[in-house]
Amino acid sequence: MELWFLGTSAGMPISGRNVTSIALRMPQDRGTFWLFDCGEGTQHQLLSTPFRLSRLEKLFITHLHGDHLFGLPGILSSRASLGGTEPLELYGPPGLREFTETALRISETHLGYPLHIREIEEGTVFEDGAFSVEAALLDHRIDSFGYRVVELPRVGALNTRLLAELGVPSGPAYGRLKSGEDVVLEDGRTVRSSNVVGHPIAGRVVVVLGDTKPCPNAVKLAQGADLLVHEATFAHDLADKADEYGHATSVQAAETARDAEVGRLILTHFSSRYKPEDLAVLEAEARNTFLATDAAIELTPYLIPRSSLSE
Amino acid sequence: MELWFLGTSAGMPISGRNVTSIALRMPQDRGTFWLFDCGEGTQHQLLSTPFRLSRLEKLFITHLHGDHLFGLPGILSSRASLGGTEPLELYGPPGLREFTETALRISETHLGYPLHIREIEEGTVFEDGAFSVEAALLDHRIDSFGYRVVELPRVGALNTRLLAELGVPSGPAYGRLKSGEDVVLEDGRTVRSSNVVGHPIAGRVVVVLGDTKPCPNAVKLAQGADLLVHEATFAHDLADKADEYGHATSVQAAETARDAEVGRLILTHFSSRYKPEDLAVLEAEARNTFLATDAAIELTPYLIPRSSLSE
Ligand SMILES: [Zn+2]
Ligand SMILES: [Zn+2]
Repeated sequence: MELWFLGTSAGMPISGRNVTSIALRMPQDRGTFWLFDCGEGTQHQLLSTPFRLSRLEKLFITHLHGDHLFGLPGILSSRASLGGTEPLELYGPPGLREFTETALRISETHLGYPLHIREIEEGTVFEDGAFSVEAALLDHRIDSFGYRVVELPRVGALNTRLLAELGVPSGPAYGRLKSGEDVVLEDGRTVRSSNVVGHPIAGRVVVVLGDTKPCPNAVKLAQGADLLVHEATFAHDLADKADEYGHATSVQAAETARDAEVGRLILTHFSSRYKPEDLAVLEAEARNTFLATDAAIELTPYLIPRSSLSE
Repeated sequence: MELWFLGTSAGMPISGRNVTSIALRMPQDRGTFWLFDCGEGTQHQLLSTPFRLSRLEKLFITHLHGDHLFGLPGILSSRASLGGTEPLELYGPPGLREFTETALRISETHLGYPLHIREIEEGTVFEDGAFSVEAALLDHRIDSFGYRVVELPRVGALNTRLLAELGVPSGPAYGRLKSGEDVVLEDGRTVRSSNVVGHPIAGRVVVVLGDTKPCPNAVKLAQGADLLVHEATFAHDLADKADEYGHATSVQAAETARDAEVGRLILTHFSSRYKPEDLAVLEAEARNTFLATDAAIELTPYLIPRSSLSE
């Protein structure tokens, strides 16, 4: 799993930084990617990544400010043009449906795939056997959600060499052993699942927060995450401005990361006032509070690490 | 006056070509620019031009397909962020108001300037002392307008050297002479306006058509224009496909230019199937029908010439 920042600029694009969107490359067996937010130009940024729009599986909107939203109609349309036929799930605050359906209707855009729009509340918004996603409300000028993506633990690998030595024929017995069942062989011997199946593989937890000032829900949602994405619209000297506009400073983001005991913090959503070289300042002052901090760089893969806690 | 193509791709952006928007740099004394269409990423493209968004005066939408429309909410919002305070006039087909107002309302975008949305019909949609704009309906899958921008003739320059020789004091008399009035001097001599004012300067005519198949209105609207911008979604071998989707081929665009006796034709809105080197083919086959044809290149200024007819 990897995160790609498709945009790291707050409010509007500037040369070299686009508005917010983050792509999450899902594990290989799933073969898809998810998007968090979809500022204008997100589909353009995807052209510089390995992602194919037809493989976009889910799209989560944190809040309905334009710099997180206005790329949505275009990406839905292009996904159809590029041959996407699988259903697409779209999650976000109430209002998302009216915005999306109005844009598609007035532009007479006909998607060739089912689009499911889920206007969410706090709580679990998605769950299947492999992943769950929980949403919580943060503290911004408008309803803004954070998303906690939890990879569920996977069953350990079968020790196929040992099974061969024991003379267990491959077939249904393998599946039963893997699912935790002990198996009695034809010759009467019992093979214990626990002897031939490795330790369960802990899942990873990645938390992406929408725009927010520091708030208890941010810490709660991010608790123990392997990776936390947090906005840092301003450097710490503009803490008053951050508070006024419902944003966080780099240091406040680091405090949340520290309090939530996450493995790694990545800062994004930088005010257009900051030049590339200024971002090192935001990063440095955050590291004084939480060392494992990086200022996001666009169009670069960030591996989702497994924190020591979850291993 | 110059045209800048901010996007030349039909339907969706590809690497190196954005979706449709065209900027028209107005004469220096006006100090503004106009936009025709506003596909997603138009504001991003403007970052690579000399245009400042605060100087955007008018925005004309040809039709409501997403590749001509979805950049609109973002550009309206950024114009406010970048200090635009002057009113902005927005013209386009019915539906434009609902799309725009819904996007701004749901994203809680508060523009700091007056936005006037004009849902247009055929005919003159704008006129002041210097310019008029006429709209006509073309033939596409959805209502699609062409816009004829007419620079009104300007009064010729005052011959200030001659006036000095005649001993005419600068002041109110200059204005009266320029406006066509003859002036009697204090010593009783009469100065004739026609003797001291140069020939009127003919205005230029530029016509920008929305997506269309060949149709009589296209020829009529483009009649005698100094410059015509015409879509050429397909090369001539895909004339059937063009017809099916309500588009034109390069050769059909050239036929319209020839029939309308324009000064110059610029082709745009190329299908994403065409690579940069393919565009030379579209250009070449159009030139067989109408020599003064170019395939548009993005982010390059095209001077609006005065055709021999209008000089
Ligand atoms: Zn934002
Ligand atoms: Zn089009």
